Amino acid sequence: MHQPHVVGAGMTRFAAHDRPLAELFGEAAVSALDDASLGTDAIEAFYLGNAMGGQIENASHLAPQLASHIGLAGIPCQRFEDACATSSNAFKHAVQAVESGRHDAVLVGGVERCTPETGLDTAEMTTQFATAMHELYEQPVGLSFPGVFGLLTDRHMHEYGTTEEQLAEVAVKNHFHGSLNPDAQHGREITVEEVLDSPVVASPFRLYDCCPFSDGASAVVVANESVAETARDQGADEPIAVQGVGHATDVVPIADKVDPGATQAARDAAEQAYDAAGIGPGDVDVVELHDCFTGAEILATEALGFFEAGEGGPAAAEGRTRLGGELPVNPSGGLKAKGHPIGATGTAQIVELVTQLRGAAGERQVEDAQVGLAHNLGGDTATTLVSVLEAGA
Amino acid sequence: MHQPHVVGAGMTRFAAHDRPLAELFGEAAVSALDDASLGTDAIEAFYLGNAMGGQIENASHLAPQLASHIGLAGIPCQRFEDACATSSNAFKHAVQAVESGRHDAVLVGGVERCTPETGLDTAEMTTQFATAMHELYEQPVGLSFPGVFGLLTDRHMHEYGTTEEQLAEVAVKNHFHGSLNPDAQHGREITVEEVLDSPVVASPFRLYDCCPFSDGASAVVVANESVAETARDQGADEPIAVQGVGHATDVVPIADKVDPGATQAARDAAEQAYDAAGIGPGDVDVVELHDCFTGAEILATEALGFFEAGEGGPAAAEGRTRLGGELPVNPSGGLKAKGHPIGATGTAQIVELVTQLRGAAGERQVEDAQVGLAHNLGGDTATTLVSVLEAGA
Repeated sequence: MHQPHVVGAGMTRFAAHDRPLAELFGEAAVSALDDASLGTDAIEAFYLGNAMGGQIENASHLAPQLASHIGLAGIPCQRFEDACATSSNAFKHAVQAVESGRHDAVLVGGVERCTPETGLDTAEMTTQFATAMHELYEQPVGLSFPGVFGLLTDRHMHEYGTTEEQLAEVAVKNHFHGSLNPDAQHGREITVEEVLDSPVVASPFRLYDCCPFSDGASAVVVANESVAETARDQGADEPIAVQGVGHATDVVPIADKVDPGATQAARDAAEQAYDAAGIGPGDVDVVELHDCFTGAEILATEALGFFEAGEGGPAAAEGRTRLGGELPVNPSGGLKAKGHPIGATGTAQIVELVTQLRGAAGERQVEDAQVGLAHNLGGDTATTLVSVLEAGA
Repeated sequence: MHQPHVVGAGMTRFAAHDRPLAELFGEAAVSALDDASLGTDAIEAFYLGNAMGGQIENASHLAPQLASHIGLAGIPCQRFEDACATSSNAFKHAVQAVESGRHDAVLVGGVERCTPETGLDTAEMTTQFATAMHELYEQPVGLSFPGVFGLLTDRHMHEYGTTEEQLAEVAVKNHFHGSLNPDAQHGREITVEEVLDSPVVASPFRLYDCCPFSDGASAVVVANESVAETARDQGADEPIAVQGVGHATDVVPIADKVDPGATQAARDAAEQAYDAAGIGPGDVDVVELHDCFTGAEILATEALGFFEAGEGGPAAAEGRTRLGGELPVNPSGGLKAKGHPIGATGTAQIVELVTQLRGAAGERQVEDAQVGLAHNLGGDTATTLVSVLEAGA
């Protein structure tokens, strides 16, 4: 068994991009290779996350095409799709391939375009996103993702007294964090009042409770100890150890889940990741989690074991998850402010953790960050991956 | 390192199916589990191949949904997409997961619907298939897959004197084989004259040179020695050892390939698979290969090392690749007669090899088959996987 490390990380700005997928991904990939001080000859396989290129841009079978664009054609290239958890799944497989000795170094990343630059407007894109819900039981009744997470959050409010103001505080925090991140789509700070005055999208969510449509790409190089040492020798920044990746699923459709609000896959994936890393929630210093909606962040902070049931809302409102608080959550701005180009989101979380664990996050640096956790979910909370990274290991 | 085996195999008939993807896949999966004499509790992960569910049926993020349908929700589930090589890639990852000890037993399979039962007609479906070609350099000039393989075959005819009659002989052979396979879409024998009289689709291919649009599903259980022994004890048929899986890619678009007709990815993947299995082409007893078009079979028999350059056409015409010949190719009927439900094709090749290597193929049984090879390609020959299976190992 080898110890997988992330030896290089790169991403584009998340924003609206009028550029082909290959060019967008190329920017992130070359940036990751540069960061690792490695050439393409060091890369033995390419694991790609792209969720909807076939539907949105008539571009399927993307892995060899993107590989060709960056000079990697020839090696094994494969595309993963698991809705919004797409590139975390690619990352998991890259980590496993390095751990088992199958490959010494793997390029893994994701790319997606979801803004009107694709030619699809908000309603059309919402319809595309909804393909990740059950086509027989969920799509026909008009359920969309704001609806799913709205239902889960409504239940949380009913059970624990979570308030709209607490949801708004999550958005305010993540926009503040995003204002410190030059790669974030939304760099503007907002106020609780602005959130509460914004139009309702799907109760209890208002416009500012929802992450945006985004275009972007992210990539990391996962490698074994030996390549990590070479990278260091060639001038790369500190390699960051991958200590555990958990992956669990839950029943689809959401109506069949035993307790939809539990987001059980998150609990199961977290348990796997904590066990593999030999740590508990209390050991985590910095978190990047899947805040597709403000309520999703509150549910996740509880499912990951950071707060007791019902404490997630008050914790956010009290600033405990803000930069400077006891456990900074989404210092990148999260999906909410950094943006959410579906297939690029999972590895972008890894990019942020690597930056934080290297102490290279500038104004948004989490102090003394040694252990980072990424949480990425797909569909109606059916797929969740949780990864634990550690500096100096 | 563990020795991966296929311990169970199942598929639906390839045909037009007016059934949901989950139900179609469920038939194949339950059949594979039954064949392995294993229950769902033995399965630790689920690797799904589906190429175009999001585009064709508004159904993405399918892995957890299909897992739920067959009682597997909870375990890691992931979808792969690499055009027509989709489920071979899922198979490769399942084999690697078992080999490394990550999982003891993995369910891997594929499902797709491509017939007018989906609501899309032939022209619309051809457009969907073309998303697997380069969206900037190939799609805009109207290149489609009959066109790509037509160009490669035209070149082969020019260089080696391969004839339309030789192409037709491939179709005649595979329809004959299909007539012996109850799961084949086309069970009717055809003649060389019928092929040559059929309308041109993309020169030199006529209608009967082309595989059909198909709906269907296939699944296999990949497991380590210990699970294989349990399966045997519980009454399963002989486990079939997976001795090697090769996976290589080539440059996209096709215009950038050094020698498009070489189908270099097939040569590279075959070399990897032969090396891993410690065999050469001469050791193979039965072959399932990617005959999306008759010319593709001829190119593949050469790229895989069974015949010298230019010998593939004459070999087919002489019956050397027919049942009873020196190396039976596509005894199942191949994509041409068995059918080609994109995401289901790769693991369906494995299903046929397992059936052959167990000596359970009935009328289409290849005599004394001990070593089988599967060849599955995706896109404009950009992705190829080659797998070697062995009985009694």
